[in-house]
Amino acid sequence: VPALVEAIRSLAVRGAPLLGLAGAYGVALAAARGFDVGEAARQLRTARPTMANLDYGVGRAVAAYEAAGGAAGGAGAARAALAEARALHREDEAAAERMTRHGQELLGELLPGGQFRVLTHGNTGALSSGGAGTAFAVLLAAHRAGRLRRLWVAETRPLLQGARLTGWEAARAGMPYAVLADGAAGTLLASGEVDAVVTGADLIAADGSAVQPVGGYPLAVLARHHGVPYVVVAPVTSVAPDTPDGRAVRPATRPGHEVTDLRPGAAIAPVGAQAYNPAFDVTPAELVTAVVTDRGVVEPVDRGNLAAVCSRSLPS
Amino acid sequence: VPALVEAIRSLAVRGAPLLGLAGAYGVALAAARGFDVGEAARQLRTARPTMANLDYGVGRAVAAYEAAGGAAGGAGAARAALAEARALHREDEAAAERMTRHGQELLGELLPGGQFRVLTHGNTGALSSGGAGTAFAVLLAAHRAGRLRRLWVAETRPLLQGARLTGWEAARAGMPYAVLADGAAGTLLASGEVDAVVTGADLIAADGSAVQPVGGYPLAVLARHHGVPYVVVAPVTSVAPDTPDGRAVRPATRPGHEVTDLRPGAAIAPVGAQAYNPAFDVTPAELVTAVVTDRGVVEPVDRGNLAAVCSRSLPS
Repeated sequence: VPALVEAIRSLAVRGAPLLGLAGAYGVALAAARGFDVGEAARQLRTARPTMANLDYGVGRAVAAYEAAGGAAGGAGAARAALAEARALHREDEAAAERMTRHGQELLGELLPGGQFRVLTHGNTGALSSGGAGTAFAVLLAAHRAGRLRRLWVAETRPLLQGARLTGWEAARAGMPYAVLADGAAGTLLASGEVDAVVTGADLIAADGSAVQPVGGYPLAVLARHHGVPYVVVAPVTSVAPDTPDGRAVRPATRPGHEVTDLRPGAAIAPVGAQAYNPAFDVTPAELVTAVVTDRGVVEPVDRGNLAAVCSRSLPS
Repeated sequence: VPALVEAIRSLAVRGAPLLGLAGAYGVALAAARGFDVGEAARQLRTARPTMANLDYGVGRAVAAYEAAGGAAGGAGAARAALAEARALHREDEAAAERMTRHGQELLGELLPGGQFRVLTHGNTGALSSGGAGTAFAVLLAAHRAGRLRRLWVAETRPLLQGARLTGWEAARAGMPYAVLADGAAGTLLASGEVDAVVTGADLIAADGSAVQPVGGYPLAVLARHHGVPYVVVAPVTSVAPDTPDGRAVRPATRPGHEVTDLRPGAAIAPVGAQAYNPAFDVTPAELVTAVVTDRGVVEPVDRGNLAAVCSRSLPS
């Protein structure tokens, strides 16, 4: 469990849906090994701030473990935690499929001509999920349907999830992609080369504001400036009803070396340089054109529409 | 001369004022060595697109060389070219001093409280100039006057002029600085931590639009979104009267490996990844609060005000 917590902290394991699974399997692991499940759950929950799915996955596995007797339940309780993690895993796959379908429909409505050029950010594909992912899953389906003309991949500094991970996923799928420095998105949008921005989220607040990897918010401002839709794709398990809006998200920072050193020992800034390294971005709901969830599309994005979609029962 | 051209192309020598000097000294070098001065001038001028000062510096030295007899003028013509390059060098130092003074006055007016927190981008200090630079020179003077509370340095991907060069200049001067990923500027502005954005320019069009290193334009859009002044500091030698506006600037791209490889052999994107790597950004005049030149401040930024300041004679 400590190794898993460190992997989550260092972002070796990341991506909203995948963190839900990591949290649930982490609880199951602690239970199977006979560790203190409550303490393991606490450590897992706090390994990364503002990741709704991590909290959700831990909570689901703990609830199953407790319902089966908890520490007194022995192997049966451990098996219940594992079964719950596996159930979440299957649900995640199914959620990715539904988001893909809803996302495809939305893109078809927003961009009726097809052959779209989409800018994305961060990594939201299979590397971030138990299934095909969130935003990237939608774009991969568009590619497979012959409707994606160009995938623009913002590199997503400081940790370069875009260049490293989304680049890898796009290359593997044979998608027509190109990587760009985050700051080059301005020129790209200004030159009319982007039909939509489609990204994922770490957490969706109750008003529809999106907590995202750093750099999402500037893309939302640029998209609005250029009249381009900004679409967030996230399962309802990423929605945090207790977070009323973007202002309620507590600022958090990550280690400065992620900015000043490209790798341990490979400094780009002077020795001793301070860094400003926010742990995430908050994109206010008013800049989000639509939130695509596994239960349908929230559009326009507001508290009522989001609550209505989240409480909708799943299609049978 | 070919080595100088390559240094300009690879951005080993960069910065608007410094490219003016490099152009002028390059012509003087060609003349001293007995090379074809016309051909050297052509190669130097085209080593980087859209750098007004490069063109200007080459033009000044060529004019002096021709006035002294050109190829037929022998050593005298070569000496005239060198004298002109040296004159430009001294003028550049003096221009930096005047921009610093005008910039200080403008910041005092825009931010009457003093103790300002400024976000900058690219590298615009002594490493980019024969003198103290452009934007950075203003901020260094503010620091020395005890009026700079925080210098935020956008790292400026892909070539990291901010983290590498501005970071070094800020550290050397003991300034209170911190480096950030370009995409983190959104969070910084949204959290009210920036009082002004102050940057340089590669070229100023006749309407006041600024050609800047990639990432300048998104900062201008964000600054406008947050009601924060966006100030460009550039000598009148960066103004290109023949470029009517930002739309007249021809798009140009740089090698993709600058984005996909952090260094030769240090790839961050998959092998064979395509990259979108625009050579520069264009910030339209309407997003620029003021242009600080060595002949005074252009504010509001429009064609008439810019022309008036450029044609103003220098203070005696």
